[in-house]
Amino acid sequence: MNCLLLESEEVGSGLDRVRIMGRRCEHARRILGLESGDRIRLGVIGGRLGWGRVIALTNEALDLEVTLEEEPPPKRPLWLVLALPRPPVFRRLVSTIASLGVERLLVVGTARTERSFWQSHVIRPEAIRERLLLGLEQARDTRLPEVELHRYFEPLVDEVLAPQLAHRRGLLAEPSAPQACPHAVEGPITLFVGPEGGFIDYEVERLRGIGFEAVHLGPRALRVEPVIPMLIGRLCP
Amino acid sequence: MNCLLLESEEVGSGLDRVRIMGRRCEHARRILGLESGDRIRLGVIGGRLGWGRVIALTNEALDLEVTLEEEPPPKRPLWLVLALPRPPVFRRLVSTIASLGVERLLVVGTARTERSFWQSHVIRPEAIRERLLLGLEQARDTRLPEVELHRYFEPLVDEVLAPQLAHRRGLLAEPSAPQACPHAVEGPITLFVGPEGGFIDYEVERLRGIGFEAVHLGPRALRVEPVIPMLIGRLCP
Repeated sequence: MNCLLLESEEVGSGLDRVRIMGRRCEHARRILGLESGDRIRLGVIGGRLGWGRVIALTNEALDLEVTLEEEPPPKRPLWLVLALPRPPVFRRLVSTIASLGVERLLVVGTARTERSFWQSHVIRPEAIRERLLLGLEQARDTRLPEVELHRYFEPLVDEVLAPQLAHRRGLLAEPSAPQACPHAVEGPITLFVGPEGGFIDYEVERLRGIGFEAVHLGPRALRVEPVIPMLIGRLCP
Repeated sequence: MNCLLLESEEVGSGLDRVRIMGRRCEHARRILGLESGDRIRLGVIGGRLGWGRVIALTNEALDLEVTLEEEPPPKRPLWLVLALPRPPVFRRLVSTIASLGVERLLVVGTARTERSFWQSHVIRPEAIRERLLLGLEQARDTRLPEVELHRYFEPLVDEVLAPQLAHRRGLLAEPSAPQACPHAVEGPITLFVGPEGGFIDYEVERLRGIGFEAVHLGPRALRVEPVIPMLIGRLCP
């Protein structure tokens, strides 16, 4: 944890003191080894970043004097459309995606997305929020990316993706694409990363039909976990 | 597993049949669900890629008729110098690094590298080789990256890194660097990624002194696992 995140309800307007209990208090005491007078990086979810000075710390509660002076780092103008991967992979990826500064995450179903994955508890809103917060704490960010679940491909394409592409460059990661993924793309991007088994031909054609460009990352078959940071590192200026 | 890897001893010269037992046989039977007559991608460690046709498959052994026709994908001219991370992170990273096509991995000690990490079994040669092979199987590659362990910083700098930089561009990932990491760098690169707590100032100065350029990836504090594919996606043309 590089930054302790507070719920906005915890920080009353104008108030400069907060009391923290539970996981974050435990972490502050046992992992960070904080003591009275120490300073710690913190932020308010959806709001500013700043510092907390430890006023008191017991087994049950951490009392902090809070100053909030900085804006969080800007998000990348990148929306990621991700075929729902295996639940443990999804769980880790949600934190990574939040830490990388992705603005919006659309979790979607494709022909080769295992149907059973949609039964997993990892896609419950509270589970997703918990994993997003871990990513924000890592990256010293306060703003949660928007996350949406779209189980069916056709309405996703017609109602969500097609209208976006009037204003955003659409890129589709597809190993058999003729062109390599570009570098340092300026402006908003919608990036679609398919399932482990790949897209079916129909899906690639359908997405190209609404304006997605298919791009590859070279001849290697890669897992989705490294592919996402690889694409983001490459695309973002 | 996208490619079954055979030890070169398993494939006699001129021989086109091999018998496989143990983990890979189990995987072929239970995960891939192979049957007589099926074809499977394979490769010989350090050698060519090709196909195997299933001649017989029992609980104990898989007999394949082998043809080897393709060269493995080229390695990236990228040498990665990595401060030894926490053992479970290192274990996963070794496979990822092999799958990404890194040519050479130097695992090193820095001032903020936990000393206890060097006691872990994950850095034993056989443990590293096993994780490298998983990465190669994923990426359909046959050539193992070279891996070296360098526990002490000073001899690493003087004897290993300084001579390299006559022929390679040296880049140092450092969040406080004034310049952003470049895109699509042609030619050989030596990339140094520090420990979780960062380099100490002395180390940055020492590495800059022998020709490393310090580069950043933006204002976010990121874990080493996404940072490595991010840098590789960005640096490689």
